[in-house]
Amino acid sequence: MSGTPFADWMASVQAQTEAALDSFLPPATQVPVKLHEAMRYTTLGGGKRVRPLLAFAAGELFGADADAVARAACAVEMIHVYSLVHDDMPCMDDDALRRGKPTVHVAYDEATALLVGDALQAQAFDVLAGGSVAPARLVTMLRLLAEAAGSKGMCGGQAIDLDSVGFKLSLEQLERMHQLKTGAMLRVSVLLGALAGRDLDAREQDALAAYARAIGLAFQVVDDVLDATADSATLGKTAGKDAAANKPTYVSILGLEPSKALAEQLRQQAHEALAPFGEQALRLREVADLIVQRKA
Amino acid sequence: MSGTPFADWMASVQAQTEAALDSFLPPATQVPVKLHEAMRYTTLGGGKRVRPLLAFAAGELFGADADAVARAACAVEMIHVYSLVHDDMPCMDDDALRRGKPTVHVAYDEATALLVGDALQAQAFDVLAGGSVAPARLVTMLRLLAEAAGSKGMCGGQAIDLDSVGFKLSLEQLERMHQLKTGAMLRVSVLLGALAGRDLDAREQDALAAYARAIGLAFQVVDDVLDATADSATLGKTAGKDAAANKPTYVSILGLEPSKALAEQLRQQAHEALAPFGEQALRLREVADLIVQRKA
Repeated sequence: MSGTPFADWMASVQAQTEAALDSFLPPATQVPVKLHEAMRYTTLGGGKRVRPLLAFAAGELFGADADAVARAACAVEMIHVYSLVHDDMPCMDDDALRRGKPTVHVAYDEATALLVGDALQAQAFDVLAGGSVAPARLVTMLRLLAEAAGSKGMCGGQAIDLDSVGFKLSLEQLERMHQLKTGAMLRVSVLLGALAGRDLDAREQDALAAYARAIGLAFQVVDDVLDATADSATLGKTAGKDAAANKPTYVSILGLEPSKALAEQLRQQAHEALAPFGEQALRLREVADLIVQRKA
Repeated sequence: MSGTPFADWMASVQAQTEAALDSFLPPATQVPVKLHEAMRYTTLGGGKRVRPLLAFAAGELFGADADAVARAACAVEMIHVYSLVHDDMPCMDDDALRRGKPTVHVAYDEATALLVGDALQAQAFDVLAGGSVAPARLVTMLRLLAEAAGSKGMCGGQAIDLDSVGFKLSLEQLERMHQLKTGAMLRVSVLLGALAGRDLDAREQDALAAYARAIGLAFQVVDDVLDATADSATLGKTAGKDAAANKPTYVSILGLEPSKALAEQLRQQAHEALAPFGEQALRLREVADLIVQRKA
C-alpha cells in the first residue's frame, strides 16, 4: 500500500478496523442482548479511528501481519471507546452527544453505560491476548496496554483533569495531565502496532517514543483549538465545553494563535523523530499531519 | 503448611494477600494522589478474600511459587473489588456501606468511584502480566481473566441481573445469571492459582471446573440465605436489599430451608469433584466448607 494516497490508505484502515471490531465484539443476538447491543452501538460506525491509524502505520513499518495489527488496533480503540462512554456519564462530563449520536447513558441508561465501559475494557485485553504474536512479546504488549490504560496512564490523567477544574494550571502541569490522559494511549497505539511486527531495539523505541510524545501533545493542542473555534455539528460533540467548565486549555493559557503555532511545531518534531526510519515511515508522518490538520 | 489448621492457613493467606495488594497498588503519595488513595481505601484492609483463598489453595496443589500465586490472587481480587465499587454506585445498587465502611462514591465522589473501578481493572491485568510465569501460560491466564471479567462473564451476569429486576426467573435462569455474575470470577480464581503452578491436563481442568461450578453456585445460594437472615452489622453491607428490590433469589424461589439444603449438597459435590487429587486438595475442600458455612 506504500504507493497509495493517504486518503485511500486511511479509508482502507478505517474499513479494516470497523470489520475487525465487528468480528471481535460479541454478536448482539448473544445474551446479555442489551449489553452486547450497547457495546456495538458505541464502538461501531464512527470515529476517526486515530489510534488504529497509528497502530496500522507502525505495524506496516515493522512488518506486522494483518491479524496481529488488527488486534492491536481494536484493543486500543476499545479502551478509547470505553473511556468516552464513562467520560460522558452524568457524574463526569455529562455529555449527551458523541460522534454525532446520543451517548450510551442517553440512548440506554446509566447502569448500561457503566457496564458497557467495564466490559469493553475487558474485551480489549481479550482481543489482544487472543492473537498469535510470540508469547513473550505478547505479554509485553498486554502489560504496556494495562499501564497506558490505568492510574499511571489514561485513568490517572482523567483524575488529574477532574481535580484541576477551576484551578490555574501551569503549562507544565497541563502538559503532564495530557501526556497521561490522551498521550499514554496514543503512545501505546504506536508501540503495540510496532510490536505486532517484531521486537524493537532501544534506538527504535526511543524514536517511536519521541514521535508519540509530539503527536500526543499536538493532538491535545489541536483539540483545544477546535473546542474554541469549531461548532458542535462539525465536532460531533458539544463544542466550547472546556471554557464553559472553566477547564484549563492550551488556548486559555497560551492564546489561540500561539496554540496553532505550537501544534505546527509539534508536527515538525514528530517528523524529525521518524528520521531514522527514512521513507518507510511515510504513514506515521502522514498520521501526524492528519492529527494537526484535522478540522474535527 | 499442609499440617496447619485451616483457620491459621486462612489468616496467613489473607495477610499475604493484604501485603501483596499493598505492594502492587501505587503508593498514595504518587500523583494522582486522590485516585491512588481511593484505590487503596477500597482495596486494602478488609474482605474475606475468598478469591485469593481459592487461588492460593489451587496454587499449593499445583506447586505455584509465592510471587506467581500472589499475582494471580491480587489480579482476581482487584477485578472483584472494582466490580463492587461500580456496583455500589447510585446508578447501580446505590449502596452506602461496604465491608463495614462508606462506599467509594460516598467517601469520595461518584467520578472518583468510576475512575477507581476503571483503574483497578487495568491494574489487575498489569499485576498478572508482570509475573515470571512462562509466557505462553501467562497469555492463557490473561485471556482467561479477561473472559471471566467481561461481557461473557462477570459484566454479562451483572447485565442479566439488572434486566431481571421485577421479573420472575426460573431456577435455570437464576443459576445461569449467577454462573456469570459470581461464578466466572470464582472459577478463574481456581484456574489462575493452578496455572500459576504449571500447565493442566484435560482431566485436571475438568475436575477443577466441576469444583468451581459447585462452589460458585453454593456461594450465591449462601449469599441469598444470609441476605434473608443476617443483619447489616454482621454482613458489613445492607441486608435484605434483594427482597426490597424485588430481585429473584434462591430463597424467594426455593424457600429458606431448601436453599440451605442445596448449599450443603453443592458443598458435597465440590468435595467429590476434588477426589482425583486425593489428600493434596485439602485446602480447596476447606475453602468450599468455608464458603458454605460462613456467617457473613
